[in-house]
Amino acid sequence: MRNIRLSIAYEGTRYQGWQCQEGKENTIQGRLESLLSRMCGEEVELKGSGRTDAGVHASGQVANFHTRCELTLPQMQAYINRYLPEDIAVTQIQEVPERFHSRLCARGKRYAYRVVNAPVPNVFWRRYAHWVQEPLDAEAMREAAAYLLGEHDFQSFTSAKKGRKSTVRRLDEITVSRQGELITLAFQGNGFLYHMVRILTGTLLEVGLGERDPRSMPEILAARSREAAGALAPAKGLMLEAVFYEKL
Amino acid sequence: MRNIRLSIAYEGTRYQGWQCQEGKENTIQGRLESLLSRMCGEEVELKGSGRTDAGVHASGQVANFHTRCELTLPQMQAYINRYLPEDIAVTQIQEVPERFHSRLCARGKRYAYRVVNAPVPNVFWRRYAHWVQEPLDAEAMREAAAYLLGEHDFQSFTSAKKGRKSTVRRLDEITVSRQGELITLAFQGNGFLYHMVRILTGTLLEVGLGERDPRSMPEILAARSREAAGALAPAKGLMLEAVFYEKL
Repeated sequence: MRNIRLSIAYEGTRYQGWQCQEGKENTIQGRLESLLSRMCGEEVELKGSGRTDAGVHASGQVANFHTRCELTLPQMQAYINRYLPEDIAVTQIQEVPERFHSRLCARGKRYAYRVVNAPVPNVFWRRYAHWVQEPLDAEAMREAAAYLLGEHDFQSFTSAKKGRKSTVRRLDEITVSRQGELITLAFQGNGFLYHMVRILTGTLLEVGLGERDPRSMPEILAARSREAAGALAPAKGLMLEAVFYEKL
Repeated sequence: MRNIRLSIAYEGTRYQGWQCQEGKENTIQGRLESLLSRMCGEEVELKGSGRTDAGVHASGQVANFHTRCELTLPQMQAYINRYLPEDIAVTQIQEVPERFHSRLCARGKRYAYRVVNAPVPNVFWRRYAHWVQEPLDAEAMREAAAYLLGEHDFQSFTSAKKGRKSTVRRLDEITVSRQGELITLAFQGNGFLYHMVRILTGTLLEVGLGERDPRSMPEILAARSREAAGALAPAKGLMLEAVFYEKL
């Protein structure tokens, strides 16, 4: 059996998220699996590095599948990109050792959350950024973000119910940068809980609007309760940029 | 009568271009005129700085209209942006002297044409850039562009039939810049003929692909014939960025 790793870009706007689930007919995983099955002439199971919610985008999602298909890698990539809808593309393809598993071997991820901060919405960013009309204080957002760096229990920053699984994660980088009316929040860490980036962003936006003190971050972390944190930022501003692996 | 000047941004993807014409129901001018007429309670005629073709975008189109409407400028802008579809926005509004005419007073324009130059299409640029799979030689394109600078008869670079009107225009700037897989061609000049930017781009792309000698530009200009130039580049890569006026 060959193990094939794909790097995938998609605009999530018209999909019900990455993962196939009952009642979700139109998922990115579903689109890819049916295409790969047709290409390989056998049932293909595609394993993603993790889910993305409905409306969330990816420029660097990673997934892998096992197959007996004998096409070359360039043949596979050409076939896939020829038949994929134009809002999904396989940007890289490689053959990897059989033990590579895109979710279990992932050591970290990077996300970007984009905000258009201007009195008037930007027509070109409307699918990829969240529009905030009131001026944001990026410096206050940076001050708040600094408290979130490092290893913490992020229970307050997830919509997942409390369970047995650990909610401790390590954030290695959070940056808040402004280019004209576009503010980009970048998050890099060893793993992210359900809705974590969007709740971190929603909380930082409340800081940027002056509704929250930047120094309240340690309290929010300590509360270990979803209610302590800010609102869930809209899906369309979020982009999965990269998934990191150790060299195999 | 008040004379109101608008700066307008739009994604042209789903419109039949800027200008209202018979048989074209869905134009940007048409959308704006009916909204402005409703707002002002009178028939409003909106004059644009010039047409853009179906599928062409604008970040800085300029238009003006005369009205007896007594709303303040912020009230007007809020009303317009509230009711416009999300792919059109009025980014600036100001009151100008009665003699200001967005087309007749225009002294120059700037356009950008974007090309994704990569083996795989970019899902996020698919509406705003033309995809060229084969590697482009940006340096050769720059060499060719240099011959086009200054005042020339651009008859070869327009789809308009030969007529009495002058086809002499002055190009003040043409740049070809690459950022990763994105190549941006920027054009600034005192005026542009029908299809001129798209034919200039199509010709420069043929130079970039090695199909044309950069030094053939003077011959193409001298031919004063559409057949001498390259193909018409697709509309979706084109963006009207700015219209310039003398201070009134």
